[in-house]
This record gives sequence, C-alpha cells and structure tokens, in this order.
Amino acid sequence: MYDLIIIGGGPAGLTAGIYAVRFGLDTLVLERSEISGQITLTDIVENYPGFPEISGLELMEKYKAHALKAGVETRITEVLSVRSEGAKKVVSTDGGGLEAKAVILATGANPKHLGVPGEEALIGKGVSYCATCDGPFFRNKTVVVVGGGDSALTDALILSRIAKQVYLVHRRDRLKAAKVLQERAFSAPNIEFIYNTAVREIVGSTGEIRRVEKVILENLKSGEVRELPTNGIFIYIGIRPNTEIVDVDKDERGFIRTGRWMESSEKGIYAIGDCRDTPIWQLVTAVSDGAVAATAVNEYLESLKYPEKSG
Amino acid sequence: MYDLIIIGGGPAGLTAGIYAVRFGLDTLVLERSEISGQITLTDIVENYPGFPEISGLELMEKYKAHALKAGVETRITEVLSVRSEGAKKVVSTDGGGLEAKAVILATGANPKHLGVPGEEALIGKGVSYCATCDGPFFRNKTVVVVGGGDSALTDALILSRIAKQVYLVHRRDRLKAAKVLQERAFSAPNIEFIYNTAVREIVGSTGEIRRVEKVILENLKSGEVRELPTNGIFIYIGIRPNTEIVDVDKDERGFIRTGRWMESSEKGIYAIGDCRDTPIWQLVTAVSDGAVAATAVNEYLESLKYPEKSG
Repeated sequence: MYDLIIIGGGPAGLTAGIYAVRFGLDTLVLERSEISGQITLTDIVENYPGFPEISGLELMEKYKAHALKAGVETRITEVLSVRSEGAKKVVSTDGGGLEAKAVILATGANPKHLGVPGEEALIGKGVSYCATCDGPFFRNKTVVVVGGGDSALTDALILSRIAKQVYLVHRRDRLKAAKVLQERAFSAPNIEFIYNTAVREIVGSTGEIRRVEKVILENLKSGEVRELPTNGIFIYIGIRPNTEIVDVDKDERGFIRTGRWMESSEKGIYAIGDCRDTPIWQLVTAVSDGAVAATAVNEYLESLKYPEKSG
Repeated sequence: MYDLIIIGGGPAGLTAGIYAVRFGLDTLVLERSEISGQITLTDIVENYPGFPEISGLELMEKYKAHALKAGVETRITEVLSVRSEGAKKVVSTDGGGLEAKAVILATGANPKHLGVPGEEALIGKGVSYCATCDGPFFRNKTVVVVGGGDSALTDALILSRIAKQVYLVHRRDRLKAAKVLQERAFSAPNIEFIYNTAVREIVGSTGEIRRVEKVILENLKSGEVRELPTNGIFIYIGIRPNTEIVDVDKDERGFIRTGRWMESSEKGIYAIGDCRDTPIWQLVTAVSDGAVAATAVNEYLESLKYPEKSG
C-alpha cells in the first residue's frame, strides 16, 4: 500500500509529487499518457514566473525532469475509479487495483464542446480545440475562432500568423481576455471580430473525405442567420473537469469542491489544479495547489499514526 | 492615480505585477530595497517546479528579469501606511504620498526573535537568522541552531559544511522538518541534536568587542540548566508578518485575513504571500497568490467602471 497516489501527471500532480517525496512519503503518480497537462497545448507561456517566455511543452518537460530528479515515481495507466474502503483508498486502473492511504486528484480538465450539429463528426476534420496542435494544417486558409477569453485570443494570434484570415466569433459585445492580448489581436491585420454572435451549426463537405466547409452563425441581437465559409473552426468556450472517476462533492459544473488544504468532502481524498473549484486556471495556482495538498496529506498521515481517542 | 500599487517586490509582488500589466493595469511596485523577498536568504531552492536546484538569490533575479521584460514598473521606497479615502487608496511613503484605485500588500514576513536576554544586543555579533548571510563567518567554529522546522534544518545543513560543530536545539522531542531534510541532517557527522530544550539566555564576552560566547539551555523535561559554549546562534522559530502599515482584519499572529480572491476586510485592499494567512509559506503559494490577486483587482476595477445601481 502506498502512502499517497496522485492521479494526473500535469503541473499540479508533479508538484504534489515533488513535495510528497521531500516529506518522505511513498508516492506514486499515475499518468494517462506520456504527455500530460493542458499546458502542453499552449504555444507560449509568459506568466510562469522565472521563465519570461517558454513553450508549454518545454515547461512541462522541465517539470518532468524536476520530478524525476526529486525521485518521483510515475506510471502510465488509465484510472477508472477512486473510492474509500474504511481509511484505505482503492484506485481501480486498467492495469488492476492499487491501494493508498491518501489520494490526490490532479486529473485536469478538457475543452468544452459547443454541442452544435456537425461538431463531433468533424473533430479532426476541421474542428479543433488547440491551435498549437492543429494550426499548421490551415496555412493560407480561413479559420473561425470561437470565444472571447485568454485562450481564444492566444490561439487566434497563433492562427493569424499561419492562416490567411481569422474570424473571431464571440457571444458578447466585448472580450474577456487580458488587455495585452486584446491589443495584440486588434492590431493583427487578418483578425476580424464578429460580436454578439453564436455558432449554430458546423457544415462539412459532402464528398468521400468530409471536411469543414462553412459555419452557420446567428446574430444574437438581430436574430439574423448567415453562412460563413471556412476551412476550420477552433473552439475555446471553457473547460470541463475530469472528475467522473470519484464520488465527492462537486459544484454545478463538475469541479471538485475543496477547502483551504485542498481537501475534498471525503477524508483522505484531495483535489488540485484544473479539476477543482480553483479561482483561476493557471500554472501558478496548479503548482501551488500541489504543494498545499502534499503538505496536508503529510499532516493527515501523521494524524493516522497518532489517532485521537475519539477517532 | 495608479490603477494598482503593489507593496513589496518579492516573488508574490512581482507575480502580481506581471499579471496586472498583462491585464493592462497601470501598476507600480514599491520595494524597500534592491533585494526583496525572504527567498534571497535561502541557499538552495529545490521545490519551485521547473528549477530542480537554484539559489534563492538567482531565482529572485529571474523573477526580476521576468517582471522587467513584462513591463512592470518598480520604485524603491519605504511605505509608512496604507489607508482608504472613499474608494481611493492612499499610500504614504518616505518619498511622499501616492494614490491608487487598489492596493496589494506583498510585504512579506521577517524572522521571529527568541526574546531572551542577550539576543537583541548581540545581533550581528554572533546572533543571526540567516546562515546563507552569516554562515561564512563561522568557519571551523561552533554554532547553535534553534528550531525544528524546514528552515532550521536547511540552515543547520549549510552550517555543518562551514562550522566545525553544529548543535541543533529544539523544544520538542522530534523534528517537524521534511523527512528528506531530517535524513540529511541525521547523516551529517557534525550535527548534534539537543531535544526538549529551550534557550534561556545568550551570553556575550565582556571585552571591548562583544561577541557571543555561550548560551544558557534549559531541559524542559528535567528542568536542568546548563551552559553551552558557542561562537554563534542561528534562530529559526517562525516568522512575523510585516503588516503594521495597514489597519485590516488580521489573525492573532498579525497575518492579514484573506478570502478566496486574496481580498482583505477592506474593499480594494488585497494581501498575498507571506504577509497573509497563507496555509504554507512557499514560493509556489506566493506566486499563485499574486496571480489570483491581480485577477481579482482587474475584476474589481471593472466593477468600479460599471457600478451597480445600489452602489
């Protein structure tokens, strides 16, 4: 039985691992794949202090090297469920069951889908959630970006340097993104902003090889519906947490409710990073959560060793 | 009038600055001196993800370079007080008054003193709170380290590589520090552990140039009092927040009480890093606080632009 199993090998999970190993805890980090963390989808990171400009992938490699040097043990496996059996935690994986005294969930979150006709069928055929991954396929073509936050603008800027024309479609009449990103986007000559507008449908070609051909847009003020021809559509309308594997208190969006010490409603189960009810989804908050949770687990395991009489 | 004044140029303050500038806020960071942040007193940092091993001073230089590149404006001045005047915040400094719509306190914390006879008079004459700063003066000499946490052990290890003999004096019967630090300290041949013991007095020489000569120790179990000859004493018994300049809700130790968004009890005044009621005093929590507070300030300033009818 491990002292601690950490589910997820992104920035939050690896930081929890680094701290846990330093506390002397017998720790295992479970990763779904070699490349973990939403951050690897980010082209340039400029707000992780110490690195003025670094790619998400490169930063993730640094985290991994750091964890390795600290002595963090990782294993690639898919986690199916986490549950308590008395004080013990049982983690079911596609490679069998594992046991630990405590579990930290660092399962992250994934992009939300629009939920409009054509979207699911055309994923990878022009529908994307990551410009860094799929942008290069749209050289000198036309793309639509959906959303008004940091992610939408960051990736619109990436696409503006690859594609011929970028349309940014946003439901509201102004953007939510950081001013510095807005300014950069406004000064890009090939980004056109379409406000107060929603995507109603994504339409593909009818031939043997289906690809995105156009989107159907609705102006939310006038009700006007129109077609916009495009080769691709990149969607940034929020994220959905990967929290189905555990039955603890969650908010209405599915993010795990946590306290000051990252504890969930279930004793011995903690949640950190993008999968919890974090105030902002940032690298700095993720790594901070990891340190706090590992400290809390260390205290919790001490309390198991020296139980109070009432316990 | 600035949008935001950040008081303190350590990791928390600079991160808040980086985020604030990216939000397009007119921001000023006030620093007390060129070298800010308790972290600069740390020899080796191993738990800031991305840098497996870096000196505190070097990491602080990286933060500064990052902030500079992001366009953060800093000024060296001593802040005397912060207060609200209506919605406006007034910051009094030794160079005059400054005004801002919001203030983030990132004033950090300083080492606690033992409060025993001889301590204050002998600071800099053998009494120290920082092995990185003063350790080299004790080459091949004898030193006492007081405390049982991470800081005490980290610095005892530093001193063990400089001094001939290190005595670690701790009030309790076991250490609180990370296991990895404990193991390293236990395997150092010249560190001797004195448990259940308090320092009652620090005694200096009587000549023209006074220097630490011995400490008076009391065994808290047996009551036995004895003298221990030493050339120096390094004290790590906790930290005291620098929060006297502002009148907001604080906990019994003086740390500013903050909410989820780092807001203090006074609207428009936020607190981050070591000066707030943080769960742990770490780099990762400090930089995280900075990002969260800057985001909150950005929202707050938006709310001032579009006030609700009731406001």
